[in-house]
Amino acid sequence: MRKVGIIGCGLTRFGEHWGEGFRELAGEAGLAAIGDAGLTGKEIEAIYGGNMSAGRMVGQEHIGALIADQAGLNPIPATRVEAACASGGLAVREAYISVASGLYDCVIAGGIEKMTDISTEQAATTLMGAGDQEWEMFFGATFAALYAMIARRHMHEYGTTEEQLAAVAVKNHEHGSLNEKAHFQNRITMEQALNSPKISDPLKLYDCSPISDGAAALVIASEDFIKRHKKEAVWIAASAQASDTLALHSRKSFTTLAASVEAGRQAFKQAGISVKDVDVAEVHDCFTIAELLALEDLGFAKKGEAGREIAGGRFRLGDSPTINSSGGLKACGHPVGATGVKQVIEVVDQLLCRNGKRQVSGAEVGLTHNVGGSGATCVVHVLRR
Amino acid sequence: MRKVGIIGCGLTRFGEHWGEGFRELAGEAGLAAIGDAGLTGKEIEAIYGGNMSAGRMVGQEHIGALIADQAGLNPIPATRVEAACASGGLAVREAYISVASGLYDCVIAGGIEKMTDISTEQAATTLMGAGDQEWEMFFGATFAALYAMIARRHMHEYGTTEEQLAAVAVKNHEHGSLNEKAHFQNRITMEQALNSPKISDPLKLYDCSPISDGAAALVIASEDFIKRHKKEAVWIAASAQASDTLALHSRKSFTTLAASVEAGRQAFKQAGISVKDVDVAEVHDCFTIAELLALEDLGFAKKGEAGREIAGGRFRLGDSPTINSSGGLKACGHPVGATGVKQVIEVVDQLLCRNGKRQVSGAEVGLTHNVGGSGATCVVHVLRR
Repeated sequence: MRKVGIIGCGLTRFGEHWGEGFRELAGEAGLAAIGDAGLTGKEIEAIYGGNMSAGRMVGQEHIGALIADQAGLNPIPATRVEAACASGGLAVREAYISVASGLYDCVIAGGIEKMTDISTEQAATTLMGAGDQEWEMFFGATFAALYAMIARRHMHEYGTTEEQLAAVAVKNHEHGSLNEKAHFQNRITMEQALNSPKISDPLKLYDCSPISDGAAALVIASEDFIKRHKKEAVWIAASAQASDTLALHSRKSFTTLAASVEAGRQAFKQAGISVKDVDVAEVHDCFTIAELLALEDLGFAKKGEAGREIAGGRFRLGDSPTINSSGGLKACGHPVGATGVKQVIEVVDQLLCRNGKRQVSGAEVGLTHNVGGSGATCVVHVLRR
Repeated sequence: MRKVGIIGCGLTRFGEHWGEGFRELAGEAGLAAIGDAGLTGKEIEAIYGGNMSAGRMVGQEHIGALIADQAGLNPIPATRVEAACASGGLAVREAYISVASGLYDCVIAGGIEKMTDISTEQAATTLMGAGDQEWEMFFGATFAALYAMIARRHMHEYGTTEEQLAAVAVKNHEHGSLNEKAHFQNRITMEQALNSPKISDPLKLYDCSPISDGAAALVIASEDFIKRHKKEAVWIAASAQASDTLALHSRKSFTTLAASVEAGRQAFKQAGISVKDVDVAEVHDCFTIAELLALEDLGFAKKGEAGREIAGGRFRLGDSPTINSSGGLKACGHPVGATGVKQVIEVVDQLLCRNGKRQVSGAEVGLTHNVGGSGATCVVHVLRR
């Protein structure tokens, strides 16, 4: 397996895109990434595209071919990968494997979701395809309901409070306010968060990430290619993926995601680092409780203490590590298939010191953590200068 | 890139499965493949699963995690890949890359589709997600209509006749009658084919592959693993993938699939063989005209002559090469995501001389050709004893 780096990033604004369709968003991100790398399409040898549910959201499958077509990159291979909300992370991972293997020298990893062409109710139903259709969705569970059960259990076991959950939202909106690509660029107060409408008790509106449109793309290349073309790169020091049961009810614990623990463990081992070495991380905060689980499962906080730590001011911009400097899924938005790729872009930009108002100074090691469903898939990447 | 072989195959019956659901079919094929390889789940390090449209057909995405869960294989990585009807071929290819790279020693490549839980009309609409949703499906095109245009143009350019198309169906039903896993195990006559109801002129019922349920799985391993475990293997001599425009109207020609030509060219080069070396091949006959295109695009027949050759008795069991000994998509059935994996299983079984009544004697080199949509993706594998 060869050394592999990231040399270009492209990102659309996350939010409600009424003026652009699925293919326009894909093209915008992909072409921006190629441009950022200072390349043309000729150097790109393959495409991996992460997308969860374009079949149900825009009536379109065969996403890989669509992206290659839109970007004028035929006849190179184009492959869609899917693992619900971890689809983007998997696209990065498969692209990494294809270059590390020696098969390709330079590929694109992209992610996209166009979610606002259908109603919120249809979107919520579609998103339940990330959980267990037969044993969760059929009986009426939504994703907010699944994470609400996790939150309630976390409160029961560790004394986590609604205020601590709200503190995650306040922090991530603060970060999002510094990100011109974020779906929500407004700060919120604890009072706003705590007084927002209940979605699924104890989760309120501000505990939930939004339904967003967006696309993200990376150019990933081998060390040889990077040196030959004299490119600046951020290196992929680890890529790890793990699975867990699809349904919550099959798990040993509601308050830890076994796939996060396993993928994190493998990633730290591959990279030869410990959690203390991480300067900046993007973790999967589809709901505020999910950020607490991520921090605990990856070792950024002791089990049961992440809520207290965040409420005490930890993990904000300026602290080390800074968690979800992009605004996270909560404020930056969550176009499902794009999220895992956007996380990597945020960390790459932090490591290359090009994040403007939300730059973490001196960041050298970054981590991304992308979860599918209620934790049935987890992908963790470690990135280094 | 290391040498990689196939050491186990598992296949459900193709057809209408009213008694089993999506996950039961996936489990049946996967566990059969592991059993055929004489392994247990412990040796399996990752899963690649091909599926086109479970989101729309059974309300379930996140297929990789579902398969790992059903087979009790957590926490190993499980990744769904999708390229419409070429999803299965891509699963084989990504599994191949992951082992050839040195990342894994032993993985599963599977494919599945459960299509009969929705109406035929819903299935036809869903399948158009393989084409261009905005510029073909929105205006009412079905896949039969797209291939009918291809057929009509082929007739115009080369004098291909409805009888020649029917001859493809007669041949493939003859092969299917020898395959106990086939959706249709009945022979048909030229008269039956020619007198069957028009679907989209000039294509009739017997020119079309059916809507089927089914699952298929392979165990793929490195040469080291295979030698260490003293397994019999069929070797993957080439794996090639190419893309073309999503919509028919963007192509230079209707009568050749550029992605098939390109993937075929690359595959023959990788394997160091010519088309004349191939003893047995499974090609993508979603419609009878598609088999003619495949034979011509891969070089088994000269451009415009495949129809005459098949009508003259070529490519039947006993001829060299034998084309679609399984019955092809036409008679064996076409559970979309499973098809590309089933093609590989058919060829593996031919090369291992375990195909019973439809065994091709002395087969040493085989090829599989799996197409997505109307040709926007093509995957070709070459297999050897």
